[in-house]
Amino acid sequence: MTGRMGIASLVDGIAADLLPVDDRGLAYGDGLFETIAFIAGRAPLWRGHMARLARGGRRLRLAVPAATDLLAQARQLAGADDCLIKIIVSRRGGRGYAPAAKSIPSPRDSAAGKEGNAVPADAVRSILIRHPLSDVPERVYQQGLRLRWCRLRLAAQPSLAGIKHLNRLEQVLARSEWRDPKIDEGLVCDADGRVISAVAANLFVVHDGCLLTPRIDRCGVAGVARAWLLAQARRWLPVAETDIDRALVESADELFLSNAVRGVMPVGRIGRRRLQPGPVTMRLGYTLAALGIGRPPGVAPQ
Amino acid sequence: MTGRMGIASLVDGIAADLLPVDDRGLAYGDGLFETIAFIAGRAPLWRGHMARLARGGRRLRLAVPAATDLLAQARQLAGADDCLIKIIVSRRGGRGYAPAAKSIPSPRDSAAGKEGNAVPADAVRSILIRHPLSDVPERVYQQGLRLRWCRLRLAAQPSLAGIKHLNRLEQVLARSEWRDPKIDEGLVCDADGRVISAVAANLFVVHDGCLLTPRIDRCGVAGVARAWLLAQARRWLPVAETDIDRALVESADELFLSNAVRGVMPVGRIGRRRLQPGPVTMRLGYTLAALGIGRPPGVAPQ
Repeated sequence: MTGRMGIASLVDGIAADLLPVDDRGLAYGDGLFETIAFIAGRAPLWRGHMARLARGGRRLRLAVPAATDLLAQARQLAGADDCLIKIIVSRRGGRGYAPAAKSIPSPRDSAAGKEGNAVPADAVRSILIRHPLSDVPERVYQQGLRLRWCRLRLAAQPSLAGIKHLNRLEQVLARSEWRDPKIDEGLVCDADGRVISAVAANLFVVHDGCLLTPRIDRCGVAGVARAWLLAQARRWLPVAETDIDRALVESADELFLSNAVRGVMPVGRIGRRRLQPGPVTMRLGYTLAALGIGRPPGVAPQ
Repeated sequence: MTGRMGIASLVDGIAADLLPVDDRGLAYGDGLFETIAFIAGRAPLWRGHMARLARGGRRLRLAVPAATDLLAQARQLAGADDCLIKIIVSRRGGRGYAPAAKSIPSPRDSAAGKEGNAVPADAVRSILIRHPLSDVPERVYQQGLRLRWCRLRLAAQPSLAGIKHLNRLEQVLARSEWRDPKIDEGLVCDADGRVISAVAANLFVVHDGCLLTPRIDRCGVAGVARAWLLAQARRWLPVAETDIDRALVESADELFLSNAVRGVMPVGRIGRRRLQPGPVTMRLGYTLAALGIGRPPGVAPQ
């Protein structure tokens, strides 16, 4: 089940599954990534992924390949299938922390929000890898995720917050805290006890008729599904990005996680608290599932 | 000028300069590295590098290859030359943040400080790369480094502090703040204004007859040269790992940076302040240079 040409990965647009050992993505995590759901060969959240990649490029001062080029490559890998395309953009250049000048977009390009048609071929490396779509058990959408609280605290780093960069050791450490298959995900706080997100998903809380989600300007990732859901929800519900503490999570009317591949996942259990998928969760989950991202919460499979 | 066998890099002990695109070192920075000076085929600070690698493995719960195996591989690359061997150990395993069970050392091995002879071959990937020794201008040892203050603040993350992991975007961002070739290095503070280190070196301050260096338990890297110098200095000088603020740095009697490849580098200028290499800097720099690491500070080349 690989793409039209039987290829599972591309490096700089060429079929390859290897890259040089001195890649700066490996050496320093000097790069960005996106993990994108393709449904029957189309990526419903493509624009959101490209917007975040561009934002990450501005933050890291990293010239990002044109979205049109990345889309052509992703389509080559995806064919007409359901799959997941991971895009990594890593900075080219030598040893030592200093980034090569050619990898840094000119201030004019950045200001204009240019898509980087003029990125020199030796400035960055693009790596696209095809994977199967994540197999989330149907139980998760029907009865909800079983969550734990992680001990690891996310560090506050405003310079890196929100973007999807390659420095993800905090997530690996948080995810390594449990091996119990009965636990689906973990919630992670910052050093001041603010709840920020799950390990690999954003958190939403319904409280007193409002939809709340943690701010991600000090740590955390600005999820593509998160942005899409916030925009949808604003049409019919008060919405806020705010500080959220553990007590608020544990007394929420509804709780769900969002992920651009897995969609809206209701929370069924956090600690000793049990919840059912509520109306806001159901409505938002349904709209995202209508695009092919995740399944409608609380609904039995057809 | 490559090793005995004309090889510049090894992947899992085999001559190769490519690695799989799905390496977790690239995907998440899920791994560790050491950059080791070899002088005429010998690594004077080898034990310190291996001690830090083992500490990093315990912190990341990552099975690290046996030091004897790494040394055999490093020697194969280094031959009898002066060079720099970079060792990367990345975790093997699939997509998703959860680390594979086989990559996690058993608690018994960790407690015993075992060198990991029993590491399964498919648990981690070792990558060794040979580079030329850094070419630090002689001027640096004679007249000192010209430093700036970086705007970037290091995030406090006790779970990752001290170890040499692959998540180094903070260093890339800090180093990208200047391109002026008249500036040699930058000093970086944490969010509370404590001075932590230079971008790619540790900081030492001589103040009132004491040798001070920043604590690295919240952020920063526990440099191998730093540990070696602290052990040396304790024999003849009061030494403290402590909180250091900018005012203390700017009023110091002596200032120097340490790096396991470049040795002791006196600071010649920080902002408008000018300094000469002082007696503590000279003595410590001389002892480290005697091992072949760096040059004696303040001494003209022979």
